[in-house]
Amino acid sequence: MSPSLPTIALAMGDPAGISPELTAKAMALPELRAAARFIVIGDRRLFAAGARTAGVPADLPVADSLDAALAAEGPVFVDMRNCDPAAIAVGQVSRDGGAAAVQNFRAGIELAAAGRIDALCFTPFNKGAMRLAHPSYTDEIVFLDEVLGIEGTASEYNIMNGIWNARVTSHVPLKGVAELITRANLDRAIARTRTNMITAGFAEPRIAVAALNPHAGDGGNFGREEIEVIGPAVEAAKAKGYAVEGPFPSDTVFLRARAGAFDGVLTMYHDQGQIAMKLIGFDTGVTLLGGYPVPIATPAHGTAYEIAGQGIANVGATRQALLLAAEMGRRARGGAAPH
Amino acid sequence: MSPSLPTIALAMGDPAGISPELTAKAMALPELRAAARFIVIGDRRLFAAGARTAGVPADLPVADSLDAALAAEGPVFVDMRNCDPAAIAVGQVSRDGGAAAVQNFRAGIELAAAGRIDALCFTPFNKGAMRLAHPSYTDEIVFLDEVLGIEGTASEYNIMNGIWNARVTSHVPLKGVAELITRANLDRAIARTRTNMITAGFAEPRIAVAALNPHAGDGGNFGREEIEVIGPAVEAAKAKGYAVEGPFPSDTVFLRARAGAFDGVLTMYHDQGQIAMKLIGFDTGVTLLGGYPVPIATPAHGTAYEIAGQGIANVGATRQALLLAAEMGRRARGGAAPH
Repeated sequence: MSPSLPTIALAMGDPAGISPELTAKAMALPELRAAARFIVIGDRRLFAAGARTAGVPADLPVADSLDAALAAEGPVFVDMRNCDPAAIAVGQVSRDGGAAAVQNFRAGIELAAAGRIDALCFTPFNKGAMRLAHPSYTDEIVFLDEVLGIEGTASEYNIMNGIWNARVTSHVPLKGVAELITRANLDRAIARTRTNMITAGFAEPRIAVAALNPHAGDGGNFGREEIEVIGPAVEAAKAKGYAVEGPFPSDTVFLRARAGAFDGVLTMYHDQGQIAMKLIGFDTGVTLLGGYPVPIATPAHGTAYEIAGQGIANVGATRQALLLAAEMGRRARGGAAPH
Repeated sequence: MSPSLPTIALAMGDPAGISPELTAKAMALPELRAAARFIVIGDRRLFAAGARTAGVPADLPVADSLDAALAAEGPVFVDMRNCDPAAIAVGQVSRDGGAAAVQNFRAGIELAAAGRIDALCFTPFNKGAMRLAHPSYTDEIVFLDEVLGIEGTASEYNIMNGIWNARVTSHVPLKGVAELITRANLDRAIARTRTNMITAGFAEPRIAVAALNPHAGDGGNFGREEIEVIGPAVEAAKAKGYAVEGPFPSDTVFLRARAGAFDGVLTMYHDQGQIAMKLIGFDTGVTLLGGYPVPIATPAHGTAYEIAGQGIANVGATRQALLLAAEMGRRARGGAAPH
C-alpha cells in the first residue's frame, strides 16, 4: 500500500445500469490512478463486461478477499462473485442486482468503519432494487446509519460547478421540516459544512444560509424562524470568524451563488436545494456524504437504465466524485481538518 | 371608448424606481396602443418626468377624473395630482411614494370592481413604501382582498418563456403549508389555473402538478400528501378531460417544463416555484393575479432603484404584462372562458 496515496474503496452499484461501464471507464483514467489507490468492490465478470462496453482494458489485478486487497500495493479489484452479468437484464430492476449492490456497499462501509480506507465511493444504485433485496433500505444515509450504528449525524452535500449545497433536513415530509429548524441543528449543519469544505480544499468557504420561509419570512410576516433561529445561528457563526451570511430568500440565493458570490449554500430542506441544483445542471455533479468515519462520494446522476450497455455513459461526474474523495482522503491523512 | 379594444387601467407604481420611465416607455409602443385602450393612473408630472428619462413623448391626453377618462375615446392619462417628482428622491423608499402608489392601485381596483375595465396592470411597487403609507399593506393580494372584500380566493401566476407557474399556497410560513394542501384547495387551484390559461389563449393547457414532499413522498416514506390528496386531485382532473399530470418530484418538474413537456406547473408553496422560475430567468417574466373581477398583470421584476432615472430600464416585462392583460381582456369581452 503506497504511503503517499489515499486508499479509496469503490463499490460497484446497480449492475443493470451504467455502473459497470462507469467503473471500468474511471479505472482506466490515468489522473485517477495518480490521485489514489483504488480498491474496487464488485463481481469481476461484471467489471469485465463494463470494460468491454466502455472499450477500455479491465486490467486491475484481482484479489479474492478484502484482506488480500488491503495488503496489495497498487490498485486492485476485489471479486465478490455476487453477480453474473449473464443473469442480469440490462435496464431492468432486479432483486439480484440490488443484493449485489448492497453487498458491495456494505463491504466498503465495513472497511471505512475499520479505519482501513481513507474514502468510500460508489457508482449509481437503484433504490428500488436495493429495497427488493433488503426491505429496510430507505436510502444510502439510513443504510449507512444502520450498518455503522450512527444516528442522525450524517450530512449530504451536492457539489456542482464549484457550488456546494448542504441541507439541514433531507428525506423528511415537508410538514416535519419547520420543527427540525432548531438552533442546535443549524449550528451543527453550519459547522459540518464548513469543516467538510475545508477538508475539500477551501481555506475559509463562503457559505450562504437560505431562509426557511417565503421572502425570508418578510420581517416576521410569513414566519419567524429567520428571526428566532436562523439569523442568530448565522450571527454566532460570524462571531467565530466563519465566512457565513444570511438568511437569504431561497429564490435568489442560488442566483447569487451561480454568479460567484458564495462557495456553498446551506438550505433548510431537500427540494429547496435540489430544485436549484438540478436546474443549474447538477446531474453532472457529485454527492458527498459527510459525518461518517470517511468521506463518501458518488456521482449525482442515477443508473441511467435507458442508455446502459451502449458505451455512451459520461464518466465526468464519477471522475469528479473520485477526485473529490481522493483530495479529501489525502488531506485527512495529512493531518488537515477532519471531515 | 372603442368597442373593439379591451379597456385596461395601468396604475403607476413606486415613483422612486423605474415605474415612471416604464410607464412612459410602454405607452409609446405602437403594438400596445393597438392591443388595448389604456387608462393610465398616476401623477402627470411624474409621467412627464418618466417620458423625459425614457426619451419618449408624453403624449397621452389628460383627464381630471376617472369618470372623464372612462368617457374618453382613446388612451388617456388620469391625473391624480398625488406625487410631485420634485419631492421624490430617486432610489429612496418614501411614505409619500408609497401613498401615491397605493392610491393609484386602489383607483384601478375600484374601476375593476365596478366592471368598468377589462384588465388592470401596474408598474412595480415598493412594498416597504406602501406599508409606510398604509400599515396593513402586506402584499398586493392582501390589499386587493381588503379593498374588494374578497377572502382567500386569489391566485397568482408567474409566466416566463411560455411556462406558467401557479401555486396552491403563497405567502404563508413553511410550517403552515402542509395543512393547506387539501383536496378542496387542490381542486380549486387546478380548475383556476386551467381557466386562466384558457382565457390567455391555451386550448387545453398541459399542467404538471408538483409534489409536496421530497421524491414526491417516495411512495409514502417521506410524506403521504401525494397519495392521499394530490394524486386523487390529479386523477379527478384527468377524469374531467383536463390535461393535468402528476404529482411529480418538484426538483425535476421544471426541467421537463423548460424542455417543453408542459405549459404550466402548479406548485404547492411559494419557493418551490420561485426558486425554479428565477433561475430560468423570471425577472423578465410576468406576474398575473387571477380570481378577481378582472385579470391583474404586472412585470415580475421590482422597482430597480439602483438604475432608476437613467433611461436604461428594460420595458420587455412590462410590455409582456400589458399584452397578456390585453389578450385576456379581449377574450373575456368576446365571451370566451371567464377569468
